[in-house]
Amino acid sequence: MSTVAEQLAQKQRDISVAEFFERNRHLLGFDNKRKALLTVVKEAVDNSIDACEEAKILPDISVEIIDMGNDRFKTIVEDNGPGIVKKNIPNVFAKLLYGSKFHRMLQQRGQQGIGISAAVLYAQLTTGRPARITSKTGKDEPAHYYELHIDTQKNVPQIIKDDVVEWSGKVSGVKIELDFEAIYQKGDQSVDAYLRETAITNPHATITYTTPRAEQFIFQRATSTLPPEAREIKPHPYGVEHGIMQKLLRNTQSRTMQQFLTTEFSRVSPFVAKEILVKSSIPNNSKPSDITHPQVEKMMSAIRDTKIMAPPTDCIVPIGAELLEKGLRKEVNAEFYTSITRAPEVYRGIPFVVECAVAFGGEQPKDESSRLLRYANRVPLLYQQGSCASFKAVAQTNWKQYGIPQTKGSLPQAPLTIVVHLASVWPPFTSEAKEAIAHYPEIIKEMKLAIQEVARRLAQYVRKKERVGAEGKKRSYIETYLPHVANALKNLLGISQKEESVVSSKLKEILEKKRGVLEKFDVDNPEYDEELASVGKDEIGADGEGNED
Amino acid sequence: MSTVAEQLAQKQRDISVAEFFERNRHLLGFDNKRKALLTVVKEAVDNSIDACEEAKILPDISVEIIDMGNDRFKTIVEDNGPGIVKKNIPNVFAKLLYGSKFHRMLQQRGQQGIGISAAVLYAQLTTGRPARITSKTGKDEPAHYYELHIDTQKNVPQIIKDDVVEWSGKVSGVKIELDFEAIYQKGDQSVDAYLRETAITNPHATITYTTPRAEQFIFQRATSTLPPEAREIKPHPYGVEHGIMQKLLRNTQSRTMQQFLTTEFSRVSPFVAKEILVKSSIPNNSKPSDITHPQVEKMMSAIRDTKIMAPPTDCIVPIGAELLEKGLRKEVNAEFYTSITRAPEVYRGIPFVVECAVAFGGEQPKDESSRLLRYANRVPLLYQQGSCASFKAVAQTNWKQYGIPQTKGSLPQAPLTIVVHLASVWPPFTSEAKEAIAHYPEIIKEMKLAIQEVARRLAQYVRKKERVGAEGKKRSYIETYLPHVANALKNLLGISQKEESVVSSKLKEILEKKRGVLEKFDVDNPEYDEELASVGKDEIGADGEGNED
Repeated sequence: MSTVAEQLAQKQRDISVAEFFERNRHLLGFDNKRKALLTVVKEAVDNSIDACEEAKILPDISVEIIDMGNDRFKTIVEDNGPGIVKKNIPNVFAKLLYGSKFHRMLQQRGQQGIGISAAVLYAQLTTGRPARITSKTGKDEPAHYYELHIDTQKNVPQIIKDDVVEWSGKVSGVKIELDFEAIYQKGDQSVDAYLRETAITNPHATITYTTPRAEQFIFQRATSTLPPEAREIKPHPYGVEHGIMQKLLRNTQSRTMQQFLTTEFSRVSPFVAKEILVKSSIPNNSKPSDITHPQVEKMMSAIRDTKIMAPPTDCIVPIGAELLEKGLRKEVNAEFYTSITRAPEVYRGIPFVVECAVAFGGEQPKDESSRLLRYANRVPLLYQQGSCASFKAVAQTNWKQYGIPQTKGSLPQAPLTIVVHLASVWPPFTSEAKEAIAHYPEIIKEMKLAIQEVARRLAQYVRKKERVGAEGKKRSYIETYLPHVANALKNLLGISQKEESVVSSKLKEILEKKRGVLEKFDVDNPEYDEELASVGKDEIGADGEGNED
Repeated sequence: MSTVAEQLAQKQRDISVAEFFERNRHLLGFDNKRKALLTVVKEAVDNSIDACEEAKILPDISVEIIDMGNDRFKTIVEDNGPGIVKKNIPNVFAKLLYGSKFHRMLQQRGQQGIGISAAVLYAQLTTGRPARITSKTGKDEPAHYYELHIDTQKNVPQIIKDDVVEWSGKVSGVKIELDFEAIYQKGDQSVDAYLRETAITNPHATITYTTPRAEQFIFQRATSTLPPEAREIKPHPYGVEHGIMQKLLRNTQSRTMQQFLTTEFSRVSPFVAKEILVKSSIPNNSKPSDITHPQVEKMMSAIRDTKIMAPPTDCIVPIGAELLEKGLRKEVNAEFYTSITRAPEVYRGIPFVVECAVAFGGEQPKDESSRLLRYANRVPLLYQQGSCASFKAVAQTNWKQYGIPQTKGSLPQAPLTIVVHLASVWPPFTSEAKEAIAHYPEIIKEMKLAIQEVARRLAQYVRKKERVGAEGKKRSYIETYLPHVANALKNLLGISQKEESVVSSKLKEILEKKRGVLEKFDVDNPEYDEELASVGKDEIGADGEGNED
């Protein structure tokens, strides 16, 4: 026996996913202490809103951050959601890759079953302190209190304390308390900014936020209507790859291939199923588990050759152009707003919708790069802008053609805020930290089309403003000369001083009649909320550690 | 019982890491078909070289890619490494997060136990075909042949075939054969480019490469000396976080705290251990498993307050400035080369070394952005340049100060190739695909210092060249006038035609004596290997799908 292979064999062993992420915690959004604070709050709040919406409860969320000194912070996030049943609490919070969202095709904020346990892992790693969870599932139910560690070598929860506690006045909900290393700073990539943006795209939620400086912001809900419920869908045959098809065949409850195709996929009617099976020379009543590799190959190409209706798109719940624009008006005091919600599209069998809005002029800085606000399933994305599909779509748009200055391949240089929102049952992120949308061509294309549409409308405004500006200049030029013309007439015709001023004002009248009244281009935005817009903005975020793309 | 919480509970379940990456395969470097080809080859070749080096065998690696039509490729990678023992073959190739590298602090190409099984997963997903593995561990050992699938729901290998085969003439080694969807293209981010760069930074390896177009390239080894063996180290106390310390305390074999500190960490002598324990008020002979959370807190701050020698750095094996420059000379025909290997540094208790080289002028394009070649542990990094610490270090260097034009925050604009290599027992990558180095301030700082040093030397060359250029211009200007001066003298003094030409040449002599002989700035690079430099370069890589940062 070769000694080397034997020696190596002794070192080969399992790596737990918790150990993997413990070492690679930057993959989960814990690269630095400033971002860590944001990531913890974001994972907790996203989960809370998801749970409330699933239970059809208007979210009431409280976020409290306490500065413990020495770069340590305590964060407490409490919601009024449905709560989590006792036996699942340890796994939900102290096991990576566990959850209700991964196996369903449903538009939600969370998706991977990593987020909140990653926060617990980070807290444990930096302070050694367990996560404290309280959960109550109904009025007459007890409140369960857990203290949890993650056994990283096995990726299983380690229960430090399991208790029943009083939670007076609470019907149902979850409270999570974590201690971890962090830095608090305001600015564009801060918890403050994240909560402000979240409040804007989730107008049905009330969020109470206490900063480490003990300031309190209450983002009051603007509507008591929950967004329409997102519907779960099945995979569309066009988006299913060979390996997935094999897995579905192995695991299906269906007894025949026809039944398999019609029940496991969306948009496969018995008629379509038959067509696929005929093309692949597979009898309708074959058992799915008997299908061979070559038969799968045939079926895959038969699917590609068969016309199948696009997947249902009512499973996607966009924010809506109107609401998106309203949110933008609250935050940015501009002259011109417009927004669009595109029709649903599909990539790899997965439906999605792109929305876009812009705010131009007004109080925005003139000679800087425009601001890009990115969202995925109503969640603001604050990091990795440069890697995001939405950035690429904006930067690759030729803004000059719409009258907006731009260095090629960059954000336009104008007093402009651009909002891009992707809603999907599965937004593809570039990392586990869900900070940027991957460069899928279908998604970028839709984003570009959305941007072009709002940019066209913007261009009309910008050109009109320019025209009026030019007219104004011309007019003021003519007006300057009117008295001189009148004076010249006085001398030529020998008219009196009085007649001269009559002539002068008549000339002015004629000018106005001829050229029309000048339109005004001012900020007129009663929805602007100065207080909201200032949240998180009293510091410059351009520090060394935190701000990055 | 709240129905909603109960309903949700039924949906909460485990997600296997294989399922997770199956859906998020772009995290593993399988975002698009072109990159997929590179990623598969890279994972296989990196593993092969690692195994050979660990077994002290000069690597002989063969890579064959066969175009099967319809965007399907078969890739066969074979090495002469130590082989893998039979019982571990299924786990090594068909289980994610399994391997010998993660749990050791040792400078290697692989690190996570994901790479090669990710390639197997991708092949299975896109073609449904199993991986074919042959392994032989010694001259008199049988060759084992496996066909493997990954059961993604459980992340365990599924053995399709397990056989003993003839492998004539083979002493030991591994062969892996995969079928998958891909696109083959030459250019900067191609398999060709990856193998060329690998050959350059691994001059002890011979790589035989057959392209899908049946071209064959043989990168012959340039040296028969293996690089010095990398040594495994223990963690340094400064780099250990609270959670890790708790885990180490729980798992140690040591009976006393003093023993624990001296055996589990590097650079902790009995003397240092005692100092730490005294400061934390922990008796030397306390049992590690009895240490409480507050005691760990105390010990962590005692460690920070204790002077501990920096970790050993002989565990790092850089390429070496000389070899790095030699490699660069082979590939780029330039006028000026220089290189540097910095002294080892430490981040989070992990030692690392930065190396840097530049090649200036010569046949490189004049008015384009410079080219940046990035390496980590001798592996070329071809994607995600914009997210890489090395890019940041180069772009944030003020090149103008070294006489090289640059737009602020970009790569310099000059006929320049810059090489940056990071060697470390654990290079922190920005994703599982290991394409870019994360922005650790300590690493960026070292990179900047290395770049500044080579840039200073480059500046001397550039300034000298400019000086000589200016002198040359001046001289040619004077020379233009010499005959006129001589002619004027002829007319003034009435000298003969012959005397005039004598005067003219005397004047020239005086000029040369006075101003010295002009230095020549030409390419003089006998090491340039035109054939090697052209590998992978016969197409422009700037296509829509493949080229991205």
